[in-house]
Amino acid sequence: MVETDPKYYIDGVLAGDRKILSKTITLIESALPRHKSITDEIMGGLLPHSGNSIRLGISGVPGVGKSTFIESMGISLLEKGHRVAILAVDPSSAKSGGSILGDKTRMEKLSADTRAYIRPSPAGKTLGGVARKTRETIMVCEAAGFDAVMVETVGVGQSEYSVASMVDFFLVLLLSGGGDELQGIKRGILEIANALAVNKADGDNEARAEKARQVYENALHFMGAPDDSWHPPVLTCSALTMAGMDDIWDTVLRHHAEMKKSGRFERKRKQQAKDWFLYLLDEGIKEWFYQLPEVASSLPEIQKQVENGSATAMTGARRILELLDPVGSDRRQRG
Amino acid sequence: MVETDPKYYIDGVLAGDRKILSKTITLIESALPRHKSITDEIMGGLLPHSGNSIRLGISGVPGVGKSTFIESMGISLLEKGHRVAILAVDPSSAKSGGSILGDKTRMEKLSADTRAYIRPSPAGKTLGGVARKTRETIMVCEAAGFDAVMVETVGVGQSEYSVASMVDFFLVLLLSGGGDELQGIKRGILEIANALAVNKADGDNEARAEKARQVYENALHFMGAPDDSWHPPVLTCSALTMAGMDDIWDTVLRHHAEMKKSGRFERKRKQQAKDWFLYLLDEGIKEWFYQLPEVASSLPEIQKQVENGSATAMTGARRILELLDPVGSDRRQRG
Repeated sequence: MVETDPKYYIDGVLAGDRKILSKTITLIESALPRHKSITDEIMGGLLPHSGNSIRLGISGVPGVGKSTFIESMGISLLEKGHRVAILAVDPSSAKSGGSILGDKTRMEKLSADTRAYIRPSPAGKTLGGVARKTRETIMVCEAAGFDAVMVETVGVGQSEYSVASMVDFFLVLLLSGGGDELQGIKRGILEIANALAVNKADGDNEARAEKARQVYENALHFMGAPDDSWHPPVLTCSALTMAGMDDIWDTVLRHHAEMKKSGRFERKRKQQAKDWFLYLLDEGIKEWFYQLPEVASSLPEIQKQVENGSATAMTGARRILELLDPVGSDRRQRG
Repeated sequence: MVETDPKYYIDGVLAGDRKILSKTITLIESALPRHKSITDEIMGGLLPHSGNSIRLGISGVPGVGKSTFIESMGISLLEKGHRVAILAVDPSSAKSGGSILGDKTRMEKLSADTRAYIRPSPAGKTLGGVARKTRETIMVCEAAGFDAVMVETVGVGQSEYSVASMVDFFLVLLLSGGGDELQGIKRGILEIANALAVNKADGDNEARAEKARQVYENALHFMGAPDDSWHPPVLTCSALTMAGMDDIWDTVLRHHAEMKKSGRFERKRKQQAKDWFLYLLDEGIKEWFYQLPEVASSLPEIQKQVENGSATAMTGARRILELLDPVGSDRRQRG
């Protein structure tokens, strides 16, 4: 049975009740229309208590050691006195039994600690759907008292852009490799990275990692920084030996302090909220439009005409858009 | 007085009448709603005669010698027996007296030749508006018998992406410089370039241009190719001495032949038409929506709430989207 009183969720989350926190996130993840009004009320109640965390996005291709890194960083943050929430945006990460984490011992250490909260991606959801709810989930975790939120994303497709647009700091993990490793780095990723870190810099691999670090640093210099006032540093780390983990967190804190001082932090958060609002609006409008019966019935034929060249894109679009006119007229007459 | 018979325009364009060609493009560029139906008819009549050109997009930052390059390439194509249309997508290029061209003599040579047609950007139009009409203008020029269409865009903002999505081949002009020239290259541009050419490879500058070419080539290799089956070559050229101009055109032809042979040419054109159709639809839907009186009156306040954190983006968007429900209900009841 689902509790229907928003106060139950709001009070539970604010009190740091982990069970109610999980229930609240489940409710937010729910796509059921009848849950929309209660989640609006819950979010309204939690909103004033959210926002007080450092939001860290972590990306990297499969095999880079992302899960181990997040575990190590999570443990390191607990030791520094933080309360840590870990969220995953990659739907495929839910495949491994609902857990985003790799190392059993670390996972147990983290998940047993009440100062940590781990939320895997809901299975069977699309990327867009997961990312959509992740923003709200960050806020709920903040309201529950977590002051460091790590959002994991896999280094594929749109998920990085999605995550980069909801965090304060976006970290890209890399690997040293056999010489051609640099081709693996995607240009777009460098536009949104606030720092790069060559992972697995341990044992025999340490010198190679340092060499890779230098090459990446040159590459980054060569391609210019995405933000004039912050040049993304390239670091090395080992999630295994914990080497370099403190450096990375210090970099995050330094970035945070600079952003706060210059006012860019507030501006970035405001801009992110506005962008997300306008994105949701655009998506909602399109969803509504393409479900109109007239549109759904005439679109396939007209699109085929455009593709095979028997109608121009302009004419085709105009023919579909004309279907909106009567809707608008109805509205205007009634308004 | 505007001729209102579509046949006048269709026949004139198909006969290669330059005056009617210009009138037709002016009509297409017109934003007047009462011209919509006649332009639809004209485009419908010209469509079967369009598509038979090589569409070449040319980009590069101001100072790269883009105008001179286009003039030289235009003259070179005339000498090869082509009929050449030159279009500009950059609204600012209209500032210099309505001409996109730099060198007076070449411009005169080109514009005096009936096998060339030069269409500057309409002044005072926005980039989006210009790009929107440029697709249709390409088709009109093709119907008028031009078999090589060059579209100029300035190396700023969204205009390259726009142009890249309407041409077969996208060429980016570069400069050799004082060592840090490479920082001037934008990452995004490399994703869409089918070839790069270091311009002004003449006189004292020739060795420097060749050095720059090599550096760019390494950079391109380092960053990977946008298309597995075509690795964008990096060339040098001089629009002044005409050195390398033939190489560039040969590259365009080689790309064209490979695309045709593999079927990717047809697929690319179809995909471009479909993408453009869906883009126009999305734009049209949004335009319609944001002009609804209820939306226009409630959006600013809700957006402010989202920005200052008193409403979540999700709740804000839902509140605005609810305004669509009655419109949809009206429609469904009437349907």
